[in-house]
Amino acid sequence: MSYQAPLRDMRFVLHELFDVSAHCELLGNGLDRELIDGVLEEAARYTGEVIAPLNRNSDEEGVTLVNGQVTTPKGFREAYQQYVDNGWASMTGPTEYGGQGFPQMVAASFHEMLMAASLSFRVYSGLTEGAVLALYKHGSEELKNAYLEKMVSGVWTGTMCLTEPQAGTDLALLRTRAEPQADGSYAVTGSKIFISGGEQDLSENIVHLVLARLPDAPAGVKGISLLLVPKFIASADGTPGVKNTLSCGAIEHKMGIKGAATCVMNFDGATGWLIGSANQGLACMFTMMNDARFQVGLQGLGVAERSFQGALSYARERLQSRALTGPAAPEKAADPIIVHPDVRRMLLTQKTLVEGSRMLSAYTARQLDLEHGHPDADARKAASKRVALLIPIVKSFFTDMGQEVASLGVQIYGGHGFIREWGMEQLMRDSRITQIYEGTNGIQALDFIRRKLLGDGAAELGKLQDELSELCSAQAQRRELSELVAPLQVRLQEWRALTAEVLAASNRDPQEIGAYSVDFLQYSSYVLLAGLWLQAAARAQDALDAGAGEAEFYQAKLHSALFYTRRILPRVSSHREALLGGADCLMALPEAHFAF
Amino acid sequence: MSYQAPLRDMRFVLHELFDVSAHCELLGNGLDRELIDGVLEEAARYTGEVIAPLNRNSDEEGVTLVNGQVTTPKGFREAYQQYVDNGWASMTGPTEYGGQGFPQMVAASFHEMLMAASLSFRVYSGLTEGAVLALYKHGSEELKNAYLEKMVSGVWTGTMCLTEPQAGTDLALLRTRAEPQADGSYAVTGSKIFISGGEQDLSENIVHLVLARLPDAPAGVKGISLLLVPKFIASADGTPGVKNTLSCGAIEHKMGIKGAATCVMNFDGATGWLIGSANQGLACMFTMMNDARFQVGLQGLGVAERSFQGALSYARERLQSRALTGPAAPEKAADPIIVHPDVRRMLLTQKTLVEGSRMLSAYTARQLDLEHGHPDADARKAASKRVALLIPIVKSFFTDMGQEVASLGVQIYGGHGFIREWGMEQLMRDSRITQIYEGTNGIQALDFIRRKLLGDGAAELGKLQDELSELCSAQAQRRELSELVAPLQVRLQEWRALTAEVLAASNRDPQEIGAYSVDFLQYSSYVLLAGLWLQAAARAQDALDAGAGEAEFYQAKLHSALFYTRRILPRVSSHREALLGGADCLMALPEAHFAF
Repeated sequence: MSYQAPLRDMRFVLHELFDVSAHCELLGNGLDRELIDGVLEEAARYTGEVIAPLNRNSDEEGVTLVNGQVTTPKGFREAYQQYVDNGWASMTGPTEYGGQGFPQMVAASFHEMLMAASLSFRVYSGLTEGAVLALYKHGSEELKNAYLEKMVSGVWTGTMCLTEPQAGTDLALLRTRAEPQADGSYAVTGSKIFISGGEQDLSENIVHLVLARLPDAPAGVKGISLLLVPKFIASADGTPGVKNTLSCGAIEHKMGIKGAATCVMNFDGATGWLIGSANQGLACMFTMMNDARFQVGLQGLGVAERSFQGALSYARERLQSRALTGPAAPEKAADPIIVHPDVRRMLLTQKTLVEGSRMLSAYTARQLDLEHGHPDADARKAASKRVALLIPIVKSFFTDMGQEVASLGVQIYGGHGFIREWGMEQLMRDSRITQIYEGTNGIQALDFIRRKLLGDGAAELGKLQDELSELCSAQAQRRELSELVAPLQVRLQEWRALTAEVLAASNRDPQEIGAYSVDFLQYSSYVLLAGLWLQAAARAQDALDAGAGEAEFYQAKLHSALFYTRRILPRVSSHREALLGGADCLMALPEAHFAF
Repeated sequence: MSYQAPLRDMRFVLHELFDVSAHCELLGNGLDRELIDGVLEEAARYTGEVIAPLNRNSDEEGVTLVNGQVTTPKGFREAYQQYVDNGWASMTGPTEYGGQGFPQMVAASFHEMLMAASLSFRVYSGLTEGAVLALYKHGSEELKNAYLEKMVSGVWTGTMCLTEPQAGTDLALLRTRAEPQADGSYAVTGSKIFISGGEQDLSENIVHLVLARLPDAPAGVKGISLLLVPKFIASADGTPGVKNTLSCGAIEHKMGIKGAATCVMNFDGATGWLIGSANQGLACMFTMMNDARFQVGLQGLGVAERSFQGALSYARERLQSRALTGPAAPEKAADPIIVHPDVRRMLLTQKTLVEGSRMLSAYTARQLDLEHGHPDADARKAASKRVALLIPIVKSFFTDMGQEVASLGVQIYGGHGFIREWGMEQLMRDSRITQIYEGTNGIQALDFIRRKLLGDGAAELGKLQDELSELCSAQAQRRELSELVAPLQVRLQEWRALTAEVLAASNRDPQEIGAYSVDFLQYSSYVLLAGLWLQAAARAQDALDAGAGEAEFYQAKLHSALFYTRRILPRVSSHREALLGGADCLMALPEAHFAF
């Protein structure tokens, strides 16, 4: 199954919807439309021609661990070398360490392509960018000088070592310890599990960011520190030096992303250095968390796009049965299955969820850029709040969506969808982990409610709702958009009432928070996407009004917006009613009685 | 991950809800409560101790094909021998051919256990029962005498050979041909794909039921005949005789059920005999279709039960974070995750979907029995109509449900859910095919609408709705059930209005049929389950009122019914609103514009 980056839609989102050129001018990074489009075309070529063809085999071949050495699937080494040589690794890295300083808004398109091409391949590089960020923000000058340049270039990679067998969601239970040494370094001892790319044969060094406890640390999450623990300690000349006392003890046998090495990492008095202050590990790690969660969201989006592409091409070629209104292709033995309304329902569900999520990914990436790079401090703060609100949505909604879309892709293929050679089922297996790692989607929903909603009494969410209402008002007079505006206005009103109810319920009973969290996040996500679809439809209508050409492209946007509004947006009704069902019916059943 | 058959719930459904003893008396099969319970206990032992432990390895080991010989996973041969020796194979077979004539209502519980224990193992025996049925109903005396006894006992197995590369859903496109021979047999030539158990090392002979065209057959589905084509032609003494000219050309590499051989079967002038009349193959096959689709529904149910068992035991043991209201197990390092409302939401979703579906499976099995065995012809006809209405629901709703529940099981395990050793992800992979084979779930929905609803102007569905209304009326005065009755009454009214709207829409535009089919089937399924939950709650309340003991069991039923009504039933709102979105937004987008 091939993959071609959806360049036209990406350009629509970047240029027509969000004016990325103006964004880049504001950020002062010197990128213009021509340069951006050129980069995306080259990215499309690299991901489509170099990475995507490796994906199917990587699932069958998997990774092997022999004598502590991991071998990655055929072709990954060469592809990673290109990733480094051609500057893809350094795209978003800080310029003072050799990075190219691309904004997330552009990089997100490339990263979506990478995810679509191969989730397994992306795992090896995906956490390096987050590690760079944490080190850049919190590391000592000495550490930065020793490690950052190589990490930015991708010659060295980074990992995040958080999870331990007894400590997954609950980092308070961490046991890995770091003992201070006379030279200012620490001896790190403990075992970490689920470490993506903990060992591999792609980069010449691997820099682990490890959460551990110092000897005098307070209990719980206030006693966690972040340490840099490299596989090879950097020499003064910038080459990998002494091998550290750490090793990969095992690799996991997984449902998917089988081309990615998921490692048990054993640290046996390994030499490490503090990043940031002692006991401030969680705060330092949260620096990379928004980035890491955004990247996982893009995984859901990328997989979904690829599944849609596969399903669409199959639905146009596979001949089976006749249309309900009589033969559509009488010259053929049967009609292509895209004539069947239910197949179209599945395809349009894929298409509108994917394109809607792509708009939200660009919107979120823009806020990420503004949070870090807007010249005005107040604007940076405002963007930071918006990012905080959106990240749990992007992480959980995109990954749930990715799984749904991948499953629809399998269904459209019928029996062939279940056969590995076709590649559709792999997308389901690969993407299933995205709903779990970097904080399960249930944890995202709790974060959304507790930190992002209750944290400010829903002030930021209210601002977002106001902006969507303003969008509706601005478009309300356009006859062509009336079928989109009116339903969205109804939902916005309902959403505000629900938000008030959710705040009230939280005050009545803390159990309610956990009882409605997932449904409320889902509700919010679908309405937010409806707002973006209205915005897309408005731009499309602008283009049609202006007679600017490509009428079919813009008409398709209007059709898709209508489908989303009529057939996807109604999902919020069930979420609303379910959450109003309250916490009692969840909590009343005694634990022992579940087993009856 | 172990499996223990949910015997207490099965007894509740069989005895307390549907009075299986009275059912058996009506059918005159001589089974009483003691005998039934004894059989189910023995079945629980066999599936839990013999089959279930083979399942994990069967996924890793898979099947191999060497020189046309398939080798099944370790332990399958011995377990199958027990299956035959202990009479499990012959449970439902006709008594005149050595079967035990058990009603489906009892057998369904055993079959659910088999599915839960190992979907892969069940594949080898699952189609034999349908093949027996087709041969018993439509075969000549000669064929029956030569093949039925061995098939009933399970010493020989049966397959269904329908699909060809170009003909999946659309059997009109079949190309396999059958040439009449001078001796009354046929020479069958063609290639069939996706043949479950087409070749294996478990049974001494394999009897293929093959759809093919005779030379003078009319085009399309009116020209399809059903033939019996054995691997070995039965000798006069009842042993496998001459090897037929057919072979397994390849086995598929699949997402799941890897312990099941899914074969490409090549028939090369193989000797076969007509079952039923020429060109009546589809009708003959439809005899086994209800049975086969019911069995696939049970696959969804069995997998869901096993996932729930795994998730529940993990949720009670896994310690992670503290309850929202403060430590629930202060003596431990953290609370078991079952204290968290969102984990309970997932567990109760599993539990109530599983138990609700189990009630519907028993209800449907009872109707299957009455269709074939009620002494009164009118009652048989009535049951036949009810079966026809319910089968597409059981097949599609149970299998969608199975996938959802299996995915929730993975989610509750967190990262461990993605690791193969734990067994949770295998349930997702194994059950994914159930939404596809024996008619995709989209095809089930079309069948539900076109044949079962439009076929009689919704008369049978109306009867079912009336019965549910009567149930509500009968329970309306019970204060303890008021929170269940009122919401169901509202939905029943809505369902009737929606049914009328759906009929009207079908008359306006045939595209509407395919546009609303899946949502209407889902809507109907959830309301039907709510009716069964009300019935279960009424029986539980009866038992509590009578002070009959086991109060906690019955209280749990009331809790579960309330959860279902408040938090699952609301899903119908979205299905209703989506289907009212109409066909236009599906059909308006030109095919070429999907690719933008």
